[in-house]
Amino acid sequence: MPPDPNDPASAGAPESEEALIAEFWAPLAADLGGAYDLQDDCATIAPPPGTELVVTADALIAGVHFLPDEEPASIAWKALAVNVSDLVAKGATPLAYLMTLALPGKPARDWLASYAAGLAAAQQAFGCRLAGGDTDRTPGPLSVSITALGTVPIGGMVRRAGARPGDHVYVSGTIGDATLGLAVRLNEQAVLAQLAPEAQRYLAGKFSRPQPPVALGAALRACASAAIDISDGLLKDFDRLCRVSGVSGSLDASRVPLSEAARTAIDSGIRTAADLMTGGEDYEVLATVPPGRAAEFEQRAAACDTRVTRIGEVGDGQAGASVLSVSGEPMRVEKMGWDHFS
Amino acid sequence: MPPDPNDPASAGAPESEEALIAEFWAPLAADLGGAYDLQDDCATIAPPPGTELVVTADALIAGVHFLPDEEPASIAWKALAVNVSDLVAKGATPLAYLMTLALPGKPARDWLASYAAGLAAAQQAFGCRLAGGDTDRTPGPLSVSITALGTVPIGGMVRRAGARPGDHVYVSGTIGDATLGLAVRLNEQAVLAQLAPEAQRYLAGKFSRPQPPVALGAALRACASAAIDISDGLLKDFDRLCRVSGVSGSLDASRVPLSEAARTAIDSGIRTAADLMTGGEDYEVLATVPPGRAAEFEQRAAACDTRVTRIGEVGDGQAGASVLSVSGEPMRVEKMGWDHFS
Repeated sequence: MPPDPNDPASAGAPESEEALIAEFWAPLAADLGGAYDLQDDCATIAPPPGTELVVTADALIAGVHFLPDEEPASIAWKALAVNVSDLVAKGATPLAYLMTLALPGKPARDWLASYAAGLAAAQQAFGCRLAGGDTDRTPGPLSVSITALGTVPIGGMVRRAGARPGDHVYVSGTIGDATLGLAVRLNEQAVLAQLAPEAQRYLAGKFSRPQPPVALGAALRACASAAIDISDGLLKDFDRLCRVSGVSGSLDASRVPLSEAARTAIDSGIRTAADLMTGGEDYEVLATVPPGRAAEFEQRAAACDTRVTRIGEVGDGQAGASVLSVSGEPMRVEKMGWDHFS
Repeated sequence: MPPDPNDPASAGAPESEEALIAEFWAPLAADLGGAYDLQDDCATIAPPPGTELVVTADALIAGVHFLPDEEPASIAWKALAVNVSDLVAKGATPLAYLMTLALPGKPARDWLASYAAGLAAAQQAFGCRLAGGDTDRTPGPLSVSITALGTVPIGGMVRRAGARPGDHVYVSGTIGDATLGLAVRLNEQAVLAQLAPEAQRYLAGKFSRPQPPVALGAALRACASAAIDISDGLLKDFDRLCRVSGVSGSLDASRVPLSEAARTAIDSGIRTAADLMTGGEDYEVLATVPPGRAAEFEQRAAACDTRVTRIGEVGDGQAGASVLSVSGEPMRVEKMGWDHFS
């Protein structure tokens, strides 16, 4: 069981918000000069010469975006990862982040220590530092909101709205692991019965600790006409990119990259390919690349050890995304992905 | 009664998160080129040449930071104001903000319209624009987290840690109105009995719609050795500034600027001066100014129609803040202000 922030048996809580900041948050800001050890109201951020900032904000709420019993370290990791994922898809290099954290009850020291360790690991992996924020108590569920800041050469942000007919469609990593990982974490019996313990651990890890492809930024800036991160489902996010670019697009389901565990899940009938393409939370990048840049894109991705797979084409319609099934027929998909409000 | 976001009788909810963004949030980003009408994952922010960014983040939670029955427009205003307050105290010019909003239940159109109107009014008053964010549903209370970005000439941020012995201590506006306004909003009978309806409305407005002194930025940059915004109480925030500056400081309670309504509250015995100096939520600026800069500071403040009052001095001790009572004796204060964790 992860430490419970409400458990009075946990080791003592920090005596004040300032003590909490000094003990747990300030070390995460130590390498960022403009954060002033979090002893001021604000931080200063000066983008390096020739660059501009790319900014994004996303919140996670217990019971909505992560399981209520999730490890504190994984909550922290995921909160930063989902924001870094947006930066990476835009070709940006992560630089800093601000965090507001709302805790149900007085925070116990061991809970905070685990959470801070998760943040430390994530910011090390993604190359950014804490620049400020706010810690509050809430009568509601634990929630964390992060604003992430990255840099691109001025004018260099890769937009959603740039795909052109004829562009190839690429995706990083593998698709569908996170939605299967959620099923593992929810102890879905059919999934547990079909997948080996090692596969279950792999999938659960992909759900709890997504790894956006941070090394891919330069390749995207150099070669991509448009890009988006896959948070709400491969199909839904591809459809969004197509619509805002004013193009159509088609994916070939047979080419969508799958992990061995995900392949087993499909082969054993516990999930369909459509389930995995609409499940969401992949935090991989979908990019469109003009044919003349495709070889360079693949080479650059290989040079930074990032798997990319060509899965489709941009067309000259305006109808958004469509999918060809493994057998080559157009696939009907009931629901392209997640929407919190529909 | 303000519109209830849970009320199914309210006019229909937007059909998707994208529809919600397009209808309510995109107009707030219209004047910010790098926000791309909120149709992308991220925004770009390029600080004007010679400037750097100043960043801060604060969250508000229903029932913690605002009353559950607060008008949506006032919730929005306050969420932006408390962040702008931090920027202003650092001498920064507000530029943009990102917002994550967690709504209990499907958001009704009239609730969203009121909230967006409050944001529009606030960003107009403070001179900043929406750059991005995230809207979610939560099983908990309504909460909003904002990250605000401003600019200062490079190296020009006014720090907390800069007060020197001999500096004069100034405060903007008046102190204690917000804590009285909260009492009005909570229908505290003694307060309602002593204060005229007009005074009650004035105080409630100061609580619900704080007005950080945005025009004061240039004066602070030119003249202040240190500054902090007053969110948790005049004494507590002055004490923080003194401690991080490594100095002592004294305030003269008889000089603390009070509104007519606040003066009535003290004279009628329903609140003490100490209550008002520790009540918090003033969102005014406390600044220390070297004596040689004091005349210029007062002139600059007058030129931008911002009231500032000299209320104390910085000393050469290291003991933080102390207060002289109206009669000139050292005042004992039980609790300097608010702390969410003590």
